[in-house]
Formats: sequence, structure tokens, C-alpha cells
Amino acid sequence: MSTNTKSFDLIILGGGPAGLSAATAASVLRKSVALVNCHRDLGGAGINTGTVPSKTLRETALALSGLRSRKLYGVDLSIRRTVTISDFLGHEQNVRTTFNSALLERMASEKTEVFYGTGSFVDPHTISVAPLPGSSTSENVLLRGENILIATGSSPVRPDLFPFGQGEIYDSDTILMLDRIPKRMASIGAGVIGSEYGSTFAALGAEVHIVDGRDKLLPFLDAEVSQALVTAMEHAGITFHWNETVEKCEILPSGEVLLSFASGKSLTVDAVLVAAGRKSNTEALNLPVTGVATGKRGIIAVDEQYRTNVPHIFAAGDVIGFPALASTSMEQGRRVSSHAFGGDIPALAPLLPNGIYTIPEVSMIGETEESLKQKGVDYVVGRATYIQNARGQIIGDKEGFLKLLFLRDGMKLVGVHVMGEQATEVVHIGLMAMLTNASAALFVEACFNVPTLGMLYKTATLQAIRKIREAGVKT
Amino acid sequence: MSTNTKSFDLIILGGGPAGLSAATAASVLRKSVALVNCHRDLGGAGINTGTVPSKTLRETALALSGLRSRKLYGVDLSIRRTVTISDFLGHEQNVRTTFNSALLERMASEKTEVFYGTGSFVDPHTISVAPLPGSSTSENVLLRGENILIATGSSPVRPDLFPFGQGEIYDSDTILMLDRIPKRMASIGAGVIGSEYGSTFAALGAEVHIVDGRDKLLPFLDAEVSQALVTAMEHAGITFHWNETVEKCEILPSGEVLLSFASGKSLTVDAVLVAAGRKSNTEALNLPVTGVATGKRGIIAVDEQYRTNVPHIFAAGDVIGFPALASTSMEQGRRVSSHAFGGDIPALAPLLPNGIYTIPEVSMIGETEESLKQKGVDYVVGRATYIQNARGQIIGDKEGFLKLLFLRDGMKLVGVHVMGEQATEVVHIGLMAMLTNASAALFVEACFNVPTLGMLYKTATLQAIRKIREAGVKT
Repeated sequence: MSTNTKSFDLIILGGGPAGLSAATAASVLRKSVALVNCHRDLGGAGINTGTVPSKTLRETALALSGLRSRKLYGVDLSIRRTVTISDFLGHEQNVRTTFNSALLERMASEKTEVFYGTGSFVDPHTISVAPLPGSSTSENVLLRGENILIATGSSPVRPDLFPFGQGEIYDSDTILMLDRIPKRMASIGAGVIGSEYGSTFAALGAEVHIVDGRDKLLPFLDAEVSQALVTAMEHAGITFHWNETVEKCEILPSGEVLLSFASGKSLTVDAVLVAAGRKSNTEALNLPVTGVATGKRGIIAVDEQYRTNVPHIFAAGDVIGFPALASTSMEQGRRVSSHAFGGDIPALAPLLPNGIYTIPEVSMIGETEESLKQKGVDYVVGRATYIQNARGQIIGDKEGFLKLLFLRDGMKLVGVHVMGEQATEVVHIGLMAMLTNASAALFVEACFNVPTLGMLYKTATLQAIRKIREAGVKT
Repeated sequence: MSTNTKSFDLIILGGGPAGLSAATAASVLRKSVALVNCHRDLGGAGINTGTVPSKTLRETALALSGLRSRKLYGVDLSIRRTVTISDFLGHEQNVRTTFNSALLERMASEKTEVFYGTGSFVDPHTISVAPLPGSSTSENVLLRGENILIATGSSPVRPDLFPFGQGEIYDSDTILMLDRIPKRMASIGAGVIGSEYGSTFAALGAEVHIVDGRDKLLPFLDAEVSQALVTAMEHAGITFHWNETVEKCEILPSGEVLLSFASGKSLTVDAVLVAAGRKSNTEALNLPVTGVATGKRGIIAVDEQYRTNVPHIFAAGDVIGFPALASTSMEQGRRVSSHAFGGDIPALAPLLPNGIYTIPEVSMIGETEESLKQKGVDYVVGRATYIQNARGQIIGDKEGFLKLLFLRDGMKLVGVHVMGEQATEVVHIGLMAMLTNASAALFVEACFNVPTLGMLYKTATLQAIRKIREAGVKT
């Protein structure tokens, strides 16, 4: 070990949501932390390429496309024809800049030392940081860590058949570099990324096609919600091409992109987003010197403490695969520091909400009807539509609904599903209820503000109770 | 008693939020219900003149004024100069119509008999319903009720010094009849109604003045929130005239309105909203034949079962005074039927959220810093600003914040205060927590969707915990 090697209680590879929250948690426990970040900006995919930019563009699209106002008031406030995508992204850039300086400030106040460069293992306790291109120094820095966290995230997979770099072919890391809104656009893959960007570009006025080899949108959702989302997205002008696999992708002389499917059908569009899955960023880490094992697409397997098969090396965030959400990555990162340094954070609750920023938004926690049926549990469903609800009426959301799943015996809440405006927020009311093991009585007795979407919980619960009462009368 | 008199288990006077929910609750208990409604439309002030119309206009103002888009993207989407107030109110009319038919359907499905007309007591168990003007019949209907609920609501007070009917002088029942957006507008009274309409008209481009004899906005709010709201409303262009009392109100030949204050100052505007309190609608009820006592401004006093001093006569909703919100009125109504017919609804929880639809929105539950100080309780405050929060950044809310109050001993949550977009929704996360007696640990362990405003709860809680830890280190 060189005499120049600096030693830390924890070295974190990757400054995204998992790495940053691990740094904060370790600093609270008064441990010395080095954070190695392979970009000039902190925040990882959460802030820079994924979560926040896509949601910012979505919000901008909703605000500027005139979608809301047209639906509600019959007034077209669209300025679509005169704007470029960079107008839409100006706000995104502001958001990103604000976050980056806030994060730098936070790291400084917590005394986390940030190293900019690409980290790789020299041995199981030593990381070599190669400086970023364009950096003033060309020397690698050596860091020694009692514990090491791999939180390097993931990158889009680029299947060979797509000629990236030759035309309007994008992945989720490059899609925001589009210089104008394409007239026709295809998303290859109906996963979260394909669905979210598909919704946003449809709101921006593009003719959107979503192509998927399966026949169901986001199959982890409750089937009723998945189907309702398909319907809502179709109403928004999106065309789904189910059970279709792209066999050939050609750039035509006109610049258009011709997609040929295995079925023999074809589709011509102006731009393609390839959203065909992601792979973990583990290739550059020189993992063989550590003995850390990786699986399919580079995913690192971890135990419930987020330890790899090498106990002092942890992994968290997108690099360990599903659910690969900023929200869960942050919680995983906090727990890494707790487990490494004997903090007292309990294990991650199995109640993780899932939020999909399609238009309309979708969010869920807990069981689906399908999972309950599979378990053979007797349950009762309570539903409330946005349009029955005063605020739902006011905002004119005709498709939104809340669906609650209660165990028939005792009416414990076991599943919450929301589709509609603010769904990712509305679901948190149910999250609180589920985390406190609440039953239907909580919503019956709570007084909600009027008009609010929160009131949907009471309406849905009363409907479930009415069903049980009526069933009881029948028997 | 005439042979034509129909008998019911419950007669409800007033088809607003309190009356309607009492009807539903009684019908669930299989009781016969008559609902007497003195308008052609069901829904009371909640649907027809108050809650929903004002919030609908507010939402429309936010969407159509370009306020949001200007703030966020520097793009002016305003169509202000070309629209009339009836454009803005078109959507409001749609909302109202939808509600009315839904309510009628609900009453029909519950077998509640609706009588249109003005009800008054003939004796303590008998109501005479005089038909509405323009009705096909001119005969009164007599109804006999085992129990009677007075839920007739309240009306704006019209102080003599304002020449209603002579110029642009409005109260909250008539303000939506304005045929154009006034250039300058004064709201007399900085209560909930004056503040909410003041905010909406400012968003619509009016120069808004709010005049109040006191020196504090909505004094029931936590003082920090009240002050932050004043600042935010001033940023929105509203001028507050504190400690000013209107002594004279004259219509000038130009049609302008000249307000002269007791201080000697004066103010010239184009329209005036008089929001100087409300009085209970009890005058037409012929209460003397029942012995039911009324107090100041006609308010009917009730016990914790919502019974008046005459045990089989209940009162609920605005007619009993504070808090006079649609949300609480609905809960009171449900409880009337429960108490009258031996249902098992527990007493109304003291945890009633208060939602103010100003711009920005404000909402609260539980204790304020002031109330905790008064009780001599040791507490700790956790704060999080919208701009620290990913969704707050995305929506560009620079003024919003969440403030949580925890008991220092045990970190039980005892107060939730939110100012900012969606505040009336965001507060419900805290409502669930408080109803289940949760402490800080709930928010620390919960995984919130990212980006959401819900995440503010975790940020604010962690800040409170950090404060305690730092204080602990110091001692």
C-alpha cells in the first residue's frame, strides 16, 4: 500500500441516491467517508439522467402542452408548434443545477470527501480512482476502505440490432439530447421507462408507438390497473404494438427509421427510444480481484444487509437490480451504513411503494388482487373514482381511481392502487395506514379535507363496507 | 296532525354536506328519511355557492392565468385579456351539474325522499314545507319526524354600511356572478373566504386589497405559517390593509367604489367582496315553537351528540358555527344519524384538518407552536422546504414548506403544518400518522415515492432528530 493512500471507514463508489444516503448515514454515525463519483455532477441517474429529468420533462409537458387546460376548459394553451425541446429542458437544467449545488453543500457539511473519477478495485480494500477526462491531474488516487459500497448504478442495454449513433436512435441516457420533438416516435419496450417517456412525448404532441414482446403493460401492477392504464394511454393517442419483436432497424435515406417486426409487420417513425432493459455498471470495477460475484446483466447479489459474498463489500441501488427506484435505493444506502457501523436502523420494510410517472400517474403498495388470489386469501375491494370526488371533478380527471384491498376477516388494509393525477402522492396515505397495520376503521373515522383526493380513501372504504354488509344480508 | 302528513324516522332540513351525509348514514341503518332542500339543486354551500365553486374557480385561475407556467418556464400562457369570468366559470357549472345529478342518484338509491321547498317547524315534530317559487304546486306539505336535523347552513352577513345592489358590491354568495374580472378589488375581511377569493382574483390578474380590522392573517394558524402566507400572498401582488375598519362605502359616478377607513385613509377599487362573517340560517325555521335556543348570529348550540337543547332535534354543519367546513359538516351529519338511531360511529375525533385554498394552499392538523407553548409542553420542530424536495423543485414551488411538531419526550407527532401546492393533500399523510399515534420513527422508516412531496415528511423528521442529537451532544 502506497504511503499516499488515504484511509476511510467507508468508501462509496457512486454518488447517486444509494451512495449519497449511505454517505449521510455514515457521517451521522461519525465515520470517515470517501465518495467516488465518475461524473462531474453528483446525483447519479436519480438527478442527472433518470428520475428527476424525466419527471421534470413530464411536468413541463403537462404544463406547456396545454393538455390540462384543453381537457378542462376547452381552451388550447398549447405553444407546441413554436418550441424546441431545449425550451422544455431549460427548466430541467435549472432543477439539476440546484440539486447539484445542494448535494455538494450537503457532502461538505457532512465532511464526506468527494473524489471525482472512475474507481476500480486494486485489492479487496483498496480503490484506485482514475481522474475524469479533462482533469488537471493525471495521477490515480489510492483509497483504502474498511468497508466499501458499490453503488455504481446501471446503464441502458443497447442491443446490436439498433444502429446507435447513425440516426435518431436513443436510449434513456441520451433521449433528452433530442433537439426537437419527433413527429412519430417508437419506444421499444413497454417497461417503466418506455411507458413514462411514451406518455411524456405523447403529451408533447408526438405520435407515440410502444412496441413490446409481451402483451401486458407493467405486469407487476394489479391487472385492473394495468388494463386501465393501457386504456388511458390509448385515449392519450398512444398505440401499443403487443407481441411484437423488432428484427431489423434501418435508417432510411429520408432520416426516418424503419422498424421491421418478427411478425412481418413494420413501422416507420422519426425517432426510436430503445428501452430494452438495463445492465449493472460493474464492468469497470475490476471485481475479479475482490471475489465479488455478479450475475445476469452484471447484477450483484446481496444478502438482507446488502453485503455481497465478500462481507465488507456492500452493494445497493440499481446495481443490485429490482426495484431499482431512487426511493428504494436511498433506503438501501442508509441501511448499508447502519449495518456496517452498528447503527440501529431496522431492516427495510417490505412495504415499498411503486410510483410510475406515466400520464396518468400510477402508484401501488402491497398486494394485488392476483397476489391475494394466489395466496388464497379472502379479500374485499373498495373502489372510488376521481370523478366521484370533488377535487377529481375540479381537476377534471375522468379516468383516475383508487382501489383498496382489505382482508375480509378484520378488514385490514393490504393493498393500495391509485391511477390518476397525483397518484404517487395519494398512495402515501395508504402507505401510512399499512405501516401502522390499520384497518378500514381508520379511513371511516378520519376527517379529510374537502375538496381533496385524500377523501377517496373514505369513499372507497365505505364502498367496501357496504359490499360486505350487502353480502351479509344475502346470506 | 293532518292525515296527509307523512312520517319519517328522520327529517333533515338542508341538503348540504351535513344533511346529505346524515341521510346516507340513516339510510344505511334502514331508517326512513325526508330531506328538505330550499334550492332546486342539492349540495348546499358545499357544492353550489361555497367550497366547490370557489375551489373550481381557483383551479381554473391557476390553469388559465398562466401563473404556473410563467413562474416555471418563463413562458406567458395567459389568455387573461380575452376571457370573461363566464369562461372561467364554464367549468365550474359543469362540475356543479355533475355533482347535482350524482347526488340525486345517491338519494334515490338510498330511498331518501327529497322535498323541495322551505321547511319550518309547526310543532317540535312537524315540519311544513312551502314549495319553491315557480313550483307547480302551491300547497304546503306536512312531514312528521321522530327525529329532526337542522342543517340549514349559514349566509354571509351584509353590514348596513355596504350598499348591496347599487354597484359592484358582492358577498361570497354573489361574487361568482361578476361578469368580468375587476381591475382592482377589495376584500373586506382577511378570514378564510376573503383570503381564498383574494388569492384567486390576484391569480386572475386583479389588483387585490385585503382589509381587516385585526393585524394577523387567519390567527388560528401556527404563527410562522400565517406570516409565511402573508409574505407569499404579498409576493403574488396582494396588498394587506391591517388594522383598518371600513367606515364608509360609496359608489362613485364612474362606477368605482370608494372605501373610507376609520384611520382616515381611503381606497378606490372597481369591486368589493364583503367577507365579514356569516350568520346561521335559522330565522325562517320558526324555532320558537320548538324551544330550540339560538345564540349570537343565529348559531345553534349542540352537545357532543349534536343534539340541541331539545333532545330529538339535532343540528350540524355551518348552522352550529366553527369550524364550518364541508369536511367537518359531513362527519357531523354521519354522527347525527348514528346517535339518533344507535349506530356505532365513535365520537368525532378531535383531529380535524383545516384546509385553506389560498394560493399557496395551507393546511394543518393538531397543535401549533403557540398552543404547545401555552401548554408548557417541550417540543421539537422539524422543517423541510419544497425547494429542497425533488417534486417541489420540479413544480417550482419556492415558498412551500412542511413543519412538523413532535413532543421532545418520545417524539410523538402532535402538529402538522403545510404551506404550498397540494398542501391540503400532503397534510393527510400526517393525519394518518396522528390518528395512529405515530412518532418520528414512522417517517424515518417509511419509503416514500421519489419524486414526491410526501418525502418532505422524512426530510423534516430527520431534521428534527438531528437537532435533538446536536442538542444532546452540546450538553
